[in-house]
Amino acid sequence: MTSVAGSPGMADAAGSAGAPTGVEPFDAIDVIRAQRDRRPIPEDALRWLVDAYTRGYVTDAQMSAFAMAVLLNGMDRDGIRVLTDAMIASGERMSFAGLGKPTVDKHSTGGVGDKITLPLAPLVASFGVAVPQLSGRGLGHTGGTLDKLEAIPGWRAALSNDEMFAQLRDLGAVICAAGSGLAPADKKLYALRDVTGTVEAIPLIASSIMSKKIAEGTDALVLDVKFGSGAFLPELDRARELARTMVALGADSGVRTAALLTDMSTPLGLAIGNANEVRESVEVLAGGGPADVVELTVALAREMLAAAGNADADVEAALRDGRAMDTWRAMIRAQDGDPDAPLEAPRERDEVRADRDGYVTRMDALPFGIAAWRLGAGRARPQDPVIHAAGIDLRVKPGDAVRAGDVLFTLGADDAARFPRALAALDGAWEIGDTPPARTALVRERITA
Amino acid sequence: MTSVAGSPGMADAAGSAGAPTGVEPFDAIDVIRAQRDRRPIPEDALRWLVDAYTRGYVTDAQMSAFAMAVLLNGMDRDGIRVLTDAMIASGERMSFAGLGKPTVDKHSTGGVGDKITLPLAPLVASFGVAVPQLSGRGLGHTGGTLDKLEAIPGWRAALSNDEMFAQLRDLGAVICAAGSGLAPADKKLYALRDVTGTVEAIPLIASSIMSKKIAEGTDALVLDVKFGSGAFLPELDRARELARTMVALGADSGVRTAALLTDMSTPLGLAIGNANEVRESVEVLAGGGPADVVELTVALAREMLAAAGNADADVEAALRDGRAMDTWRAMIRAQDGDPDAPLEAPRERDEVRADRDGYVTRMDALPFGIAAWRLGAGRARPQDPVIHAAGIDLRVKPGDAVRAGDVLFTLGADDAARFPRALAALDGAWEIGDTPPARTALVRERITA
Repeated sequence: MTSVAGSPGMADAAGSAGAPTGVEPFDAIDVIRAQRDRRPIPEDALRWLVDAYTRGYVTDAQMSAFAMAVLLNGMDRDGIRVLTDAMIASGERMSFAGLGKPTVDKHSTGGVGDKITLPLAPLVASFGVAVPQLSGRGLGHTGGTLDKLEAIPGWRAALSNDEMFAQLRDLGAVICAAGSGLAPADKKLYALRDVTGTVEAIPLIASSIMSKKIAEGTDALVLDVKFGSGAFLPELDRARELARTMVALGADSGVRTAALLTDMSTPLGLAIGNANEVRESVEVLAGGGPADVVELTVALAREMLAAAGNADADVEAALRDGRAMDTWRAMIRAQDGDPDAPLEAPRERDEVRADRDGYVTRMDALPFGIAAWRLGAGRARPQDPVIHAAGIDLRVKPGDAVRAGDVLFTLGADDAARFPRALAALDGAWEIGDTPPARTALVRERITA
Repeated sequence: MTSVAGSPGMADAAGSAGAPTGVEPFDAIDVIRAQRDRRPIPEDALRWLVDAYTRGYVTDAQMSAFAMAVLLNGMDRDGIRVLTDAMIASGERMSFAGLGKPTVDKHSTGGVGDKITLPLAPLVASFGVAVPQLSGRGLGHTGGTLDKLEAIPGWRAALSNDEMFAQLRDLGAVICAAGSGLAPADKKLYALRDVTGTVEAIPLIASSIMSKKIAEGTDALVLDVKFGSGAFLPELDRARELARTMVALGADSGVRTAALLTDMSTPLGLAIGNANEVRESVEVLAGGGPADVVELTVALAREMLAAAGNADADVEAALRDGRAMDTWRAMIRAQDGDPDAPLEAPRERDEVRADRDGYVTRMDALPFGIAAWRLGAGRARPQDPVIHAAGIDLRVKPGDAVRAGDVLFTLGADDAARFPRALAALDGAWEIGDTPPARTALVRERITA
């Protein structure tokens, strides 16, 4: 038999592994039970839980039970703030106060073909704003910004804090690997959630994202929260709830935060992969590129510049006149990359063609993401490499007219043996109909505090 | 990013620790998510989860997330049956078919002063029924049957299967330690639930109790499900739900099962401890003893004998005429105990007296249980010993008239230093008022399939 919640004097006599020892001021079981029973958790108890988990005193099993209780019972705004603050307190905090210019960061919840950070960071930096983009690698069907940039010969993701600071001061834009010192509690908790079915808890997603961004020390933050099949939270309602939670958390933590809710039901742009996404990003920086990538890059740049006090910036001009491209080239060079080096092309290609005349009515983001992943563009385990040249190039997008025999998209891989499984993922992933689909807005909502 | 629930073809490409490897037919994350999202879990997937957890392939962290989802979302009758069956399948199954007499077992969910198994097993056995009581040790404020019996000099809890079978055949009654071969999955899961705040999940409590009882191979089972402050599930509604769940589970598994819902808001009998509970049990076997202990012993014995086909047994006669006592003495001797040996008495005593005239209106079971535990009658960690002589002897019970200065109860311990903390637990635990409290039934409800 075990002790009973709330019983008089039980906590200090209980024999459970989580019982206070005279050193530890709280009992993990009490905190788990409070979350489980929707009772308020004292602020110091919640802070202790995160700290004790980081130290290894609270076990993975205890933390995963807590995470499941958060997923199923939710957590109020104050609890999420404390949780986030505790994650920040688990590691170092950076500061860009010495830069002498405003810092604005952007975070996307991830999608298929989402290469927006690549053109966005140099574009915004070209207006004299510092954009520190501490990024990650991909896992699963949503790619990682670092994986994409590593398709550029020589480019280096790992920078020291001094290098990062110098690059921000000199160029304004830096995209590099987040150091392991930021929010280590979040790293540990995220890895646990990933294997225990507790990823999709909005309070935990919000505190995970925001703890790293706040610890990073940015003045303002713009969030690109995706909905639709290729998004992490496909339902618009859930994406909106996540956006509102993060915007509130930013406000509570003194970081000006705004969010755009954007449609991820179809891939963004025409390129899904790594090298091909860099190529498409450079097209945008050269004043071209697919309309949706340009639209979202511009919308996010306006949000970021407005947050930095420059609401009237002519963002499109900086794409047309080469200022953004200049910053991009300098940023790539500063990290040992060659912006002029040719990018790898896939050894093997396969084309998929239309079987009838009509209009493309649907291209479902998730199966395209999975197919690109199976082609080698993504990784199944954190330690796996990605194949830079692998991926999918779309020739058409929903709304486009096609004729029977037209190429719809091309698969690229290092080995033709990868094609059948990628094609299997794409079974039923697109549709050609008699009439064009209704147009829907890419940027669906804007959420501010 | 992680894979998305229900996405096409994700499971076989996901990189999570729980992903199928070609050897494992299911993914723990899929099972956790189904439970989390209230989707049905295929029977073979649930069986696999229990088996893979027992083997160590499914981790503690995954299982505790699953347990929390069961606690918060519940589980349907069919799921509980499958879960229980999987726990049984994790170990050996016993059979008493060769005994040539019906077997009836009893299980109590545990309470303060609950020594009923001691008089009950020999009483029922004295009617020619086999009563295999595979019991456990106590942890927390509810004592363990084996701890109580070990207060008898020489008595031995560990029997081989052959010894147990022979004793059942010859005497009918055996109370001994459950072997580790029964439902090992339950043992592992129970230890996990104990430290992760997932004990109080009715589907898991029911499957834990019933898996061991069904694996033990009894023909029929009578459950004493407690409610009230000293019970595991204090609310009557929750206790009723547990009783109904277990009765249904028994029916689904071919074990005739009935349950009594009994009041554990006040300690059972006058003795709370180990040696003193043996003493009180012997009083009952001698035809005396406190009215409530006799009432519950008789009620449970009638249920057990009815389940064994002897609904008309004169149970009280067997207490009066010494038949039950004879079986008790033979049972203790068969396990190397001396039924005539004096039991240890506490070295130190402390008395608590009434501060006014009146009626005892309340004696709250939980704090009395905690106080006895702090006196040394219980253990905080599984490896700790218990002090056989420690405990509390009540002189009065709710409803009794007292005068100022009368002794209400006596504390006993091996060290007087234990008294202050025990008394602290008892602060506010009893009440003396002007009028006697309303009488309530000890056996509140009877639940059958």
